[in-house]
Amino acid sequence: MAQSEPDPEELLELSSETRTILEEHSLRPLWEVEDEMGTALDDPEADVWKWEDVQEAIDHIEEDVPIADLPPGFQRRVAVPINTAHAISNSIYVGIQTVSPGETAPSHRHGANALRFAIDGHEDMKTVVAGEEFPMRNNDLITTPQWEWHDHVNDSDETAAWLDVLDLPLVLDSMNARNVFENHELERQPVTKTPGYWDSQYGNGRPEGDSGDGSIPGPFEGIREPTPPYRFGWDEMLEALRQRADNDEPDPHDGYSLSYVNPATGSPPLFPTMTFRAQLLNEGPTDPHFHNATEVYFVIEGEGATHVGDEALEWSQWDVFIVPPDEIHHHEPDDEAILLGMSDRPVLEAFNFYAEAEPSS
Amino acid sequence: MAQSEPDPEELLELSSETRTILEEHSLRPLWEVEDEMGTALDDPEADVWKWEDVQEAIDHIEEDVPIADLPPGFQRRVAVPINTAHAISNSIYVGIQTVSPGETAPSHRHGANALRFAIDGHEDMKTVVAGEEFPMRNNDLITTPQWEWHDHVNDSDETAAWLDVLDLPLVLDSMNARNVFENHELERQPVTKTPGYWDSQYGNGRPEGDSGDGSIPGPFEGIREPTPPYRFGWDEMLEALRQRADNDEPDPHDGYSLSYVNPATGSPPLFPTMTFRAQLLNEGPTDPHFHNATEVYFVIEGEGATHVGDEALEWSQWDVFIVPPDEIHHHEPDDEAILLGMSDRPVLEAFNFYAEAEPSS
Amino acid sequence: MAQSEPDPEELLELSSETRTILEEHSLRPLWEVEDEMGTALDDPEADVWKWEDVQEAIDHIEEDVPIADLPPGFQRRVAVPINTAHAISNSIYVGIQTVSPGETAPSHRHGANALRFAIDGHEDMKTVVAGEEFPMRNNDLITTPQWEWHDHVNDSDETAAWLDVLDLPLVLDSMNARNVFENHELERQPVTKTPGYWDSQYGNGRPEGDSGDGSIPGPFEGIREPTPPYRFGWDEMLEALRQRADNDEPDPHDGYSLSYVNPATGSPPLFPTMTFRAQLLNEGPTDPHFHNATEVYFVIEGEGATHVGDEALEWSQWDVFIVPPDEIHHHEPDDEAILLGMSDRPVLEAFNFYAEAEPSS
Amino acid sequence: MAQSEPDPEELLELSSETRTILEEHSLRPLWEVEDEMGTALDDPEADVWKWEDVQEAIDHIEEDVPIADLPPGFQRRVAVPINTAHAISNSIYVGIQTVSPGETAPSHRHGANALRFAIDGHEDMKTVVAGEEFPMRNNDLITTPQWEWHDHVNDSDETAAWLDVLDLPLVLDSMNARNVFENHELERQPVTKTPGYWDSQYGNGRPEGDSGDGSIPGPFEGIREPTPPYRFGWDEMLEALRQRADNDEPDPHDGYSLSYVNPATGSPPLFPTMTFRAQLLNEGPTDPHFHNATEVYFVIEGEGATHVGDEALEWSQWDVFIVPPDEIHHHEPDDEAILLGMSDRPVLEAFNFYAEAEPSS
Ligand SMILES: [Fe+2]
Ligand SMILES: [Fe+2]
Ligand SMILES: [Fe+2]
Ligand SMILES: [Fe+2]
Ligand SMILES: [Fe+2]
Ligand SMILES: [Fe+2]
Ligand SMILES: [Fe+2]
Ligand SMILES: [Fe+2]
Repeated sequence: MAQSEPDPEELLELSSETRTILEEHSLRPLWEVEDEMGTALDDPEADVWKWEDVQEAIDHIEEDVPIADLPPGFQRRVAVPINTAHAISNSIYVGIQTVSPGETAPSHRHGANALRFAIDGHEDMKTVVAGEEFPMRNNDLITTPQWEWHDHVNDSDETAAWLDVLDLPLVLDSMNARNVFENHELERQPVTKTPGYWDSQYGNGRPEGDSGDGSIPGPFEGIREPTPPYRFGWDEMLEALRQRADNDEPDPHDGYSLSYVNPATGSPPLFPTMTFRAQLLNEGPTDPHFHNATEVYFVIEGEGATHVGDEALEWSQWDVFIVPPDEIHHHEPDDEAILLGMSDRPVLEAFNFYAEAEPSS
Repeated sequence: MAQSEPDPEELLELSSETRTILEEHSLRPLWEVEDEMGTALDDPEADVWKWEDVQEAIDHIEEDVPIADLPPGFQRRVAVPINTAHAISNSIYVGIQTVSPGETAPSHRHGANALRFAIDGHEDMKTVVAGEEFPMRNNDLITTPQWEWHDHVNDSDETAAWLDVLDLPLVLDSMNARNVFENHELERQPVTKTPGYWDSQYGNGRPEGDSGDGSIPGPFEGIREPTPPYRFGWDEMLEALRQRADNDEPDPHDGYSLSYVNPATGSPPLFPTMTFRAQLLNEGPTDPHFHNATEVYFVIEGEGATHVGDEALEWSQWDVFIVPPDEIHHHEPDDEAILLGMSDRPVLEAFNFYAEAEPSS
Repeated sequence: MAQSEPDPEELLELSSETRTILEEHSLRPLWEVEDEMGTALDDPEADVWKWEDVQEAIDHIEEDVPIADLPPGFQRRVAVPINTAHAISNSIYVGIQTVSPGETAPSHRHGANALRFAIDGHEDMKTVVAGEEFPMRNNDLITTPQWEWHDHVNDSDETAAWLDVLDLPLVLDSMNARNVFENHELERQPVTKTPGYWDSQYGNGRPEGDSGDGSIPGPFEGIREPTPPYRFGWDEMLEALRQRADNDEPDPHDGYSLSYVNPATGSPPLFPTMTFRAQLLNEGPTDPHFHNATEVYFVIEGEGATHVGDEALEWSQWDVFIVPPDEIHHHEPDDEAILLGMSDRPVLEAFNFYAEAEPSS
Repeated sequence: MAQSEPDPEELLELSSETRTILEEHSLRPLWEVEDEMGTALDDPEADVWKWEDVQEAIDHIEEDVPIADLPPGFQRRVAVPINTAHAISNSIYVGIQTVSPGETAPSHRHGANALRFAIDGHEDMKTVVAGEEFPMRNNDLITTPQWEWHDHVNDSDETAAWLDVLDLPLVLDSMNARNVFENHELERQPVTKTPGYWDSQYGNGRPEGDSGDGSIPGPFEGIREPTPPYRFGWDEMLEALRQRADNDEPDPHDGYSLSYVNPATGSPPLFPTMTFRAQLLNEGPTDPHFHNATEVYFVIEGEGATHVGDEALEWSQWDVFIVPPDEIHHHEPDDEAILLGMSDRPVLEAFNFYAEAEPSS
C-alpha cells in the first residue's frame, strides 16, 4: 500500500463535523492511516562497521569498565552497532563483547535467543550453558537458546572477544512480547555435565522417546522444535564447506553456502527467528538479487566488497555489515573470502511472507 | 531485560574519549541500549469502541465520501479504531467498513491477510474472492487471504457494514517486510466459480494430490499451509458452539470457545498471524488470566464487562474492545453473550514465545 | 529381486558339508531365499462380486442365523468376499453386513480401523460410536475408528445392509501386530452425546488446545493424527463432486475424484492405512495406469466396466470389484457412474514405497 | 479378535443351501474367517544364532562359492538366519555377508532399504554408495538407502564380514508392494564424491534450499523424509553412549540407549521401516516389558542372556537373537555389554498400532 500517489488526505473533503466525531472516538479514516503505515520503525541502511573501529571502541570500554561494576541485569560489556532504534536492524541485534582474563559475565537467562561467534577465542574461555562448559575456540559458534542459563568465564590469560547475536529487536521492539529475564543466584552456574555431552546427544544417536518431543524450556509455548545448547566447532563447518566446493555448484547469490542446522531437527534455521550461513566465496562476484529479509554479515576471513544498490561496502576480516530488506546486492570477494551470513528470513517464512527475486535486466 | 533498576548510565563512567569513539562509529554500550529497548512502538491500552459511536462515524463518512472519489489504492471506506500508531494494536488491525447500495469497493490484492465479519449483512452483499461470490449474511466470516483478488459489491438496497480484520500493523509497522499491493485492471474481478465451490472443495472431500501441497499464492515463500478463500456461515458455527455447551465443560478463561480452523488443515489458526474464536459465555464470570498475546474482541451479541487490570470495559452488541498483552483480565457477561475473540497468539507461537498464566492468588 | 532368471539353486554347487551346516543352524544362502520371497501370501486376482449374488447370500445368512446366536466376539452377520487367505485383498477387507429390524450388533472395540458405507440404509438404523448415534442413510459413510466402542442398532422396520471396510488383513495377516479386541459389558453402549456432536466438533471450529494434539485412543502409540468418529453425509459429498465437475478438469485416471478427509487434519487419507475416494465418471473412459497399491471398488451408482490387464470386470450398482497391485487398468462407465474407490496407498506411502505410472505406449 | 472361544463354526448351523451359495460366489461368513485370521504368516520364535555356528557356515560358503559364480541379481554371498518363511522375522531380515580379498559384490539398487554393520571390517573394505566410498571399520554402520546404487569392494587382504539388515520380508512377503531391482551396467559404480562428502553434508550445515525438501529417489512416492547415504562411525556412537551413561539415567528396559537418527531429520528412526539402537547394558538386569514390535539383536560386545517368556537366550559377542512380538523379555548382561537393537516399531507407529507395557506383577 506504499504507493507514491498524491496525498489522499488533501483530495478528500471530510466535513468538520465528521472530523470531530472521528477524533472524539479515536477513529481515523483508513485512507489516511494507510498512507502513514510502514513508518513506525527506523529503516536500516546499508552500512559497514570496520573491525579497527570496533576494536578501538571495545578496548576503551574494557579499560573504563570492569564487568563487576555494571549493575545487575546489565553485566555484559558489549559495543552495539546502531543503525535502527536500538540495534543494527529491526530484527537481528549484533554486539561485540569482551571478557578480560579472570572476569566472568555472570549467569542469567532470558526469552530471547542468543549465540556467540568467537573472534578472539581461547580453549580456556568458556561459555557455560545448561550445565556444560563450552570452550570458545576461534570461529566456534555456541548457542545459548531461549531460557537456558548462560555465563561466560575467561580462565585464559588473554582478553576474549566474540560476536553476540540475538533476536532482541524483534522480541522487544517489534512484537508485543515482553522479554523475560532472570539473574542466576550464583555468578557461575554449576557445571553438571561432562565436556562434550550436549554435542554427543544431538549427534548421530538420540534417545528414542526424545524424538520430536519438542518440549520448550521456561514458561513458553509454541510450534517450533526448540534449539538445544550446542557448540558448532569451526573445523567441521569448514570441512563441510570445502566438501561442498569440491563436489557441488555454488549458489548463484550466496556462493558455497551451508546453513547451520538446528541440531534437534537436522535442518535450518538454527533458531525460529534467525538463520545463519557459513559462506565460501571463491568464484568471483555473485549474481545480484534482492529479498525482503534483512541480512547481516560478519567477515570470517578475506577481503572484498558487497554492492548494495549504488553503494559499495568494502570489507575485510572481522568487519560487520548489513544489507537492508529489498535492496539489490551482490558480493565481490577479492580472492577467497568466508562470511557468516545472518538473516531474519525465518521470521518472514513463519508467516508465508518471504519473497526473493533477481532484478529484471 | 526491562527491570526498574537505577539508570545504569549514571552509574557508569565512560571516559569522554570512549564516548567520542563510540559516537563516531555508530556504536553504543549495551547497558544503555538495553535500558531503552521495548519503547520503539506505542503500547496498546485497554479500551472499548462503542458501536453507537462507531456508527455515527461511519454514517458521517458514508455521507461525505462516495467510494468512487477515493484515490486508487485507497478505495475502501473504513473507520479505523486507533490505539497504537496506526491501528488498535501492534499486530491486529480492525476497521469498520461500509458499502452503500450500488457501490463497489474495487478489486485489488495484497500481501496482508484479511477477513470480513458481517455486521449489517445481506444475501446480495457479495465479497468476491478468487472467482467466487460469497454472500455476506449477518455474522458470516469470509477470508480474503494473502494475494487473492477481492472486491465488495453491494447489490442489495441497504448499506452494508462489516468488520475488517488484517495483520497490517505486523506486516507494515513491526516487521521489515514491505506489504505488496496491486489493483485489478477491472473494478470487479470476473466470477469464474459456481456458488459454493470453495466451501465444497475444503469440506469432507479433497483431491488426493492437493493434500498438503501447501503452494503459496503470489511471490511469497514460507512454511505454513496457506488459508483458502472461504466463507464460514454463522449457523454452522453457532450450532457447534451449542453442541459444545451441551456436551463439554467450558474453558475457564474463554467460555465455550471454538477457534475458526484453517480449512486446509482442519486446525486453528485461521491465518499464520491471527487466530479467531467464537466464544459463548453463559456460565457467569470467567477466571482471570494473562498472556503475552494481544486480544481484540467484537461483541456478536449480549452485554457485559471485561475486567482488564483495574479497569472495567463495559460492552454491548457490536462493540469492539482490546485486552493488551500481559494484562490480567476476565469476562463478566450479564447473561449470555457471544464474542468474536481475535488474537495474535500465532505470531508468538511461531517463535516459541507465547506465555500464559493465572495470577498467583 | 523377483527376476525371471534360471533357478540359481541349480547353478550353485554347495558341498554337502556346507548344506549340512546350514541346515543344522537354521541358515540358508541368500540366493535361494531370494528366489522364494514374495510368495508368503496369496496374490489377489482381478474379480467382481455381483450384488445379486451377494444379496442372495446375505438373505440366506439372515434367515439361517440371528445375530443373538453368534458367539461373543463374532456377533456380526457378514458375508465376506474371499480372494486372498481371508479377505478380498492382503490389506483391505470388505464385508456385507445385515442387521434385521429390532436386532443389535452388540458393542465392542478393536485395534483395527473400520468404516460402514450404507447400502440399504435408514434414518432409524443407527451406528453408535463414541457415545453418539449416527443415522445410516443411503450412501452415508460412518467411521468407527481404532479402539472406539461401536454397536449397530436397527430401530427401523426394514433389514439394513452396508459395506464394512477394515484394515484387518494388514493388521492380522500382514504385520506382526496382534489386533486387540474387547466386548462392551453392555449390548448397547450408553448414548452420551447429542446428535450431531462429533460432526460439529470437527467442522469449522475447533477447541484451540485440541489442534494437533493427536492423542491416540487405547493402548496404542504412533505418529499419525487419529481419525475421529464421524459421519460423512452423502448429500454434501455429492455436492462437492458436482462442484468439482462444474469447475475443474477430471483426473485422467480417476475421473472427478474427491478423497474423504480425516476430519482432524482436513486432508486424506481417512485412515493411516486406507484412503477412500468418491469418484464421478462421466467423461468417457479413463486413461490406463498402474500402481503398486491395491484398489477395491464399490459401485454407488451406474454401470460400466473396468479393464484390468486383459480382463473386463463388468459392474452395475452395488457390485464390489478389485484391481490388484501393478495391473494396468482403466474405467469405462456406460454413461455416468459413481464409484467408492478404496486403496491401501497410505500403507505404501508410509514407507516411501508407493509407485504409479502410465503404460509406455 | 483372536480369542480362545469354542470353535464358532460348529455352533452355527448354516443350511446346506446357504453354504452352496456362499461357496459358489467366493463368499464366507465373517465368524469363520475371523477365526482363521492371523495365521497367514509363520510366527517368529525366540531364538539365538551363535557366532561360531554362523562363522562355520560363512567360511564354508566362502570356500564353495566365489561371488563371481553367482547369477546376476543374486551376487551376494550371505548366510541368512531363518525363523519365518524367508528370514529371521516377518519384517526385518538379517544376513551375514562375506567378501574375500580382491572380490567385489557388484553394484545394484533396489526398493528395499538396507544397512551394513561391520563385524570383521577394514579401512580398505569399501561400501560404495551414491558415488562415495565408505570405509567399513569395525562396528561402523553404513546405510544403502532405497534406490541408491551400492557395491562392496574388498581392497584389503582379509576376508571382510558384516551384518546386512533389510526390510525385505515386509516389502516382499507382508505388503503387496513389489520390490524393484536393477543391476548397474558396471560391476563398480563410478566414484564421484570425495571421501567424507555425504557425512559433511548431513552434519552441522545444510544447504538452505534442501531443508525438508524430502525428494525421494527412484519411482517412489511417500510421506517420509528419505534417509541419505551415510556412515555412522562407531567411535562417535560409543562416545555418545558413554556420555549418556555419565550424565543420565538408563532406560529401564533398554539400558543406556541411543537410536541411530535419520541424518536428514536429526531424529530416529533411521529408516521409515526400521529403527536401530546402540544399547549399553552395565547396571544389572533390565526390567521386563513387552511390545507388539519385533526386536532383533546383534551383540557388539559382552556376554549375557535375554529372557524371553520362559526361555533364556544366552549370548556372547557377534551372536544374533530375536525377541518376538508380545513376548515378555528382559536383558541380563554378565558385566558390561553393548547390543545393536533393531526393531520394526516404526512400521507399527506408522499406523498408530504400536503398544508397549510392563507385565502386571
Ligand atoms: Fe544473555
Ligand atoms: Fe542476499
Ligand atoms: Fe484489501
Ligand atoms: Fe485471554
Ligand atoms: Fe467392529
Ligand atoms: Fe488406479
Ligand atoms: Fe543390495
Ligand atoms: Fe524390548
